Amino acid sequence: MSELSVNHLLGIKYITEADIQLIFETADHFKEVINRPIKKVPSLRDITIANLFFENSTRTKLSFELAEKRLSADVINFASSSSSVTKGETLIDTVNNILSMKVDMVVMRHPNPGAGIFLSKHVDASIINAGDGAHEHPTQALLDAYSIREKLGDVAGKKVVIVGDILHSRVALSNIFALQKLGAKVKVCGPKTLIPKYIEKLNVEVETNLRKALEWCDVANMLRVQNERMDISYFPTTREYTQQFGLNKAILDSLSKEIVVMHPGPINRGVEITSDVADSKQSIILEQVQNGVAIRMAVIYLLASKIKHHED
Amino acid sequence: MSELSVNHLLGIKYITEADIQLIFETADHFKEVINRPIKKVPSLRDITIANLFFENSTRTKLSFELAEKRLSADVINFASSSSSVTKGETLIDTVNNILSMKVDMVVMRHPNPGAGIFLSKHVDASIINAGDGAHEHPTQALLDAYSIREKLGDVAGKKVVIVGDILHSRVALSNIFALQKLGAKVKVCGPKTLIPKYIEKLNVEVETNLRKALEWCDVANMLRVQNERMDISYFPTTREYTQQFGLNKAILDSLSKEIVVMHPGPINRGVEITSDVADSKQSIILEQVQNGVAIRMAVIYLLASKIKHHED
Amino acid sequence: MSELSVNHLLGIKYITEADIQLIFETADHFKEVINRPIKKVPSLRDITIANLFFENSTRTKLSFELAEKRLSADVINFASSSSSVTKGETLIDTVNNILSMKVDMVVMRHPNPGAGIFLSKHVDASIINAGDGAHEHPTQALLDAYSIREKLGDVAGKKVVIVGDILHSRVALSNIFALQKLGAKVKVCGPKTLIPKYIEKLNVEVETNLRKALEWCDVANMLRVQNERMDISYFPTTREYTQQFGLNKAILDSLSKEIVVMHPGPINRGVEITSDVADSKQSIILEQVQNGVAIRMAVIYLLASKIKHHED
Repeated sequence: MSELSVNHLLGIKYITEADIQLIFETADHFKEVINRPIKKVPSLRDITIANLFFENSTRTKLSFELAEKRLSADVINFASSSSSVTKGETLIDTVNNILSMKVDMVVMRHPNPGAGIFLSKHVDASIINAGDGAHEHPTQALLDAYSIREKLGDVAGKKVVIVGDILHSRVALSNIFALQKLGAKVKVCGPKTLIPKYIEKLNVEVETNLRKALEWCDVANMLRVQNERMDISYFPTTREYTQQFGLNKAILDSLSKEIVVMHPGPINRGVEITSDVADSKQSIILEQVQNGVAIRMAVIYLLASKIKHHED
Repeated sequence: MSELSVNHLLGIKYITEADIQLIFETADHFKEVINRPIKKVPSLRDITIANLFFENSTRTKLSFELAEKRLSADVINFASSSSSVTKGETLIDTVNNILSMKVDMVVMRHPNPGAGIFLSKHVDASIINAGDGAHEHPTQALLDAYSIREKLGDVAGKKVVIVGDILHSRVALSNIFALQKLGAKVKVCGPKTLIPKYIEKLNVEVETNLRKALEWCDVANMLRVQNERMDISYFPTTREYTQQFGLNKAILDSLSKEIVVMHPGPINRGVEITSDVADSKQSIILEQVQNGVAIRMAVIYLLASKIKHHED
Repeated sequence: MSELSVNHLLGIKYITEADIQLIFETADHFKEVINRPIKKVPSLRDITIANLFFENSTRTKLSFELAEKRLSADVINFASSSSSVTKGETLIDTVNNILSMKVDMVVMRHPNPGAGIFLSKHVDASIINAGDGAHEHPTQALLDAYSIREKLGDVAGKKVVIVGDILHSRVALSNIFALQKLGAKVKVCGPKTLIPKYIEKLNVEVETNLRKALEWCDVANMLRVQNERMDISYFPTTREYTQQFGLNKAILDSLSKEIVVMHPGPINRGVEITSDVADSKQSIILEQVQNGVAIRMAVIYLLASKIKHHED
C-alpha cells in the first residue's frame, strides 16, 4: 500500500509528485464519500486533532474542521484571541502542552514563515501547515491543482498564470511548487513592486501585462488583493490595481480561447475580479471550496496512517 | 404525513397557522425526548448545519446548538468576530463558500433586517432566521406562543400585552404575527416614542398606561430594555422607564387576576421587571428557555424532512 | 461502592482526604484509558456539561473539554467575550438559563472569588470550580498532588515548597489544602509583599530565601509570574524577581539532592524558571498537563455518578 514520503505537510516544497498523486487519488475517494447522504466515515475514531489558529481564518478553519469531523476524529480548537499566547507563552510550550493531552495531529496557521517547520523539529506530532505567513499554504495549492485536474483532465502540460500580489502570497508560492511538480507551466503577473526577486530562480516567468498573460494561459488564478496593504507606498492604489490587473467579463470574452478562472477566496468583488466573472461558467471558485474538504480529508487520513504504522 | 408549507423559516409572517401547529406538535414530542436520560435522537445524522452568528448571542446560539446536537446533526459554528467577514467578503460569498462544503442548513443571526430573506433567494440551503436586526426572530415567537399554550392550555382567545421598546424589537414583531395567527388578541404598551407607526396597520392596539394594559391581559411579555439605546434623545432615561413601564410585585399583586409573566431574556433585573417578579410563580421565563430547545429541534427537524424529500 | 462526600467541586477546602484518594484511584483508571488507541469511554453519554469561562484560559479549558469528550458527554462552550454577560445579565440568570436547556454540570472559571460557591447555592446542577479569582483552582491542585504521587510514590511525608506570588495565586491556596490533607509538609517562598497574612494560620511556614527553601524540599512548585502585576508599586520588577526567586540550572545542580520541579503553566521561560530547568529530567511539567485530563475525567465521572444516583 502506498504511503506519503513525509510525516508532516509543511509545504509543497517538501513533498514529491508521487505524494501529490497519492493525495489526489485518496481525495477522489473522499469526494465520493462527502456526496453520500451520510458524509462520515469512521476511519479516524482513534485520532485527536488540534486546530491551532494564531491568525483569523474562515474557510480554511471550517474546511479543516469539517474534514476532521467527517473522518470521525476528535477535534479540539484553539484560537489565539482566546488563549494564553497573549500571556507570552512560547509556541513550543503551547503545543507541547496540547500534545501532552494526547493529541496526535496539529493543524496550525501562524503569522511567522517557517513556524510549522520549526514546530515539527521540536514536538512529537504530525504537523499540517494551514498557512505560515507569506511562506506556504500547501493544502490550498493541492486543492487548486486538484480542481484544475478535475476541470481539465490533467495538470501536466497546462499553462497557469497566477495574478496579483505574489510577494506577500503564501498561495502563490505553494501553487508554483505544486504546479511545477505536476508538470504544468507557470507564469506570474502583477505589479513589478509585488513580484519577489527570487521568482526567477524558480523558473517562473514574469508577465506584467495582464492581457498577454491571459492570452497565454489555460488557467488564471486571481489572488485576493490585501486592501490593508494598499497604504504602503510601493503598492498601487486599489483603483490602479483594478485597472491594470483586475479581470472583468469584457477582457475574458475578448480572449481567443475559454480559460478557467480560479480564486482562493475570499473575493473582493470588483477589485481583482468582477462579480460576473466570479459567477461565470468559466469560474471554478466554488468547486475549489468543495474540493478543499476532500483534499484535507485525504491529507489528514494519509498522515494518520503513518502515525498508526509508526505505533504498530 | 404533514409537512411545512415553507422551505425556510425566515419570519412568522411567511408561515401559516397550520405550520405553527405542526411545529408545536413536533415540539411536544421532542420535549419528551429531552427529558429522557439520553437526550439525543439519531434523526439528523445525515444533515450538516452551519450556525452563522454575525451578532453576539448567548442563549439563542446555545439553544440552537443544543437542539442540533440532540438531533445528532453535524454542527459547524461561525462567529463574525473570528471570521473573514471583517475582510469585506460579501454575505453571499461567505455563505456560498460554506455551502460548497456540503452544508444543508444555515441558522443565521445578522444585524440587517431581511438578511435571511435575501440569502434564501441566492443560496441553495434551508435558512433559519435566528434574528435579523429589528425585523423578526421567529423561533423566539414560536417558543413564546408554545409556552403560553403549555401554561394556559391554548393560545386562541388569550389576551397578550407586549411591553417595552416595540420600535427596535424583533421579538415584538414576530410575537404579534404568531399570536394573531393563533387567534390571540395582542396589545403593545410602551413609551410613545418607541411605538412604531406601522403598529396600527397590524391591528394591534397601543396602550401607554402599564396598569391598564396589565388589567386587560392574560399574559404580559416584558421586553428587555436596551441600555445602549438609552442615550438617544427621544428615549426616556432608564429610571423614567422603570417608573412608568417596569413591572414590580406591588403592581402584579394589585391586579384583579393572576397574569402570566414572560421575558425573552436576558433580564435587566430592577429595570423592566424586578427580581421578585422574575422569580415568582407567575413567571414562566425559565420554561421559555427550556421550550426553546424543543421548538428549535422541531423547526430543524421539519425543515430537514423537506430537504430529504426533495433529494429523494 | 465509594462516592464523593460532596455534590460539587468548589475547592479543596471542602473535600476530604478520602475524596482525594477516590479521585486519584479513578484517575489511575482513566489514565490507562487515554493511553489506549481509542481514548474514549461511553460512560457519560447521558450527561450534558456546560463550560462557562468568564476569563481567558487555554490549557484548563482544553483539558476539561478533552476530559468531557473522552467520557462521551455532550459539551457546550460559553466564553464571556462572545456572550450577553457583557449586556449586564447576572450570573444566576445566565446559568439558570443554560440549566433550563437541560444541562447537568457546569464547569466555571470566574474572576470573582467564591463565584462557584455562590452559584452552587442558587442553581440545581453540579458545579466544578475551574478557578475563581485568587481563591481556589481545585483540579489544578489535584493534578499537582497526583503528579507528585506518581513521581515519588506517595504524597504523605513529602516536603513541598510553593515559590512565587502567593498572594494572588489560586493555585497556591488549593495546593496548600490538598498537600496538607494528604500529609505533606508545605512551605511558601516569595517576596514578602506577595505573601498573604493568613498564610501562618494555615500552618504554612514562610521562607524568603529561595536556596534555603530548595535545600529543604523534595518538590518545588514554581508559580507563574503575572507580568501584568509587575507595574504595581509594592511588587519587585521582573528582573529583581528573577534574581531572587528564579530557578536556574546552576542553583538546581548545586543542591545536595535531586528535587522535583513543577509549574502550573504557562511558563515565562527565563523569569520564574529557565528553559534548561523546564526541560530537564527533574521537571514533571508535561506530566502535570497529561495528568490534568485524567484527573478531570475522574472528577467529572464521580460527580456525574452522584447526579445519577440522585435521579434514580
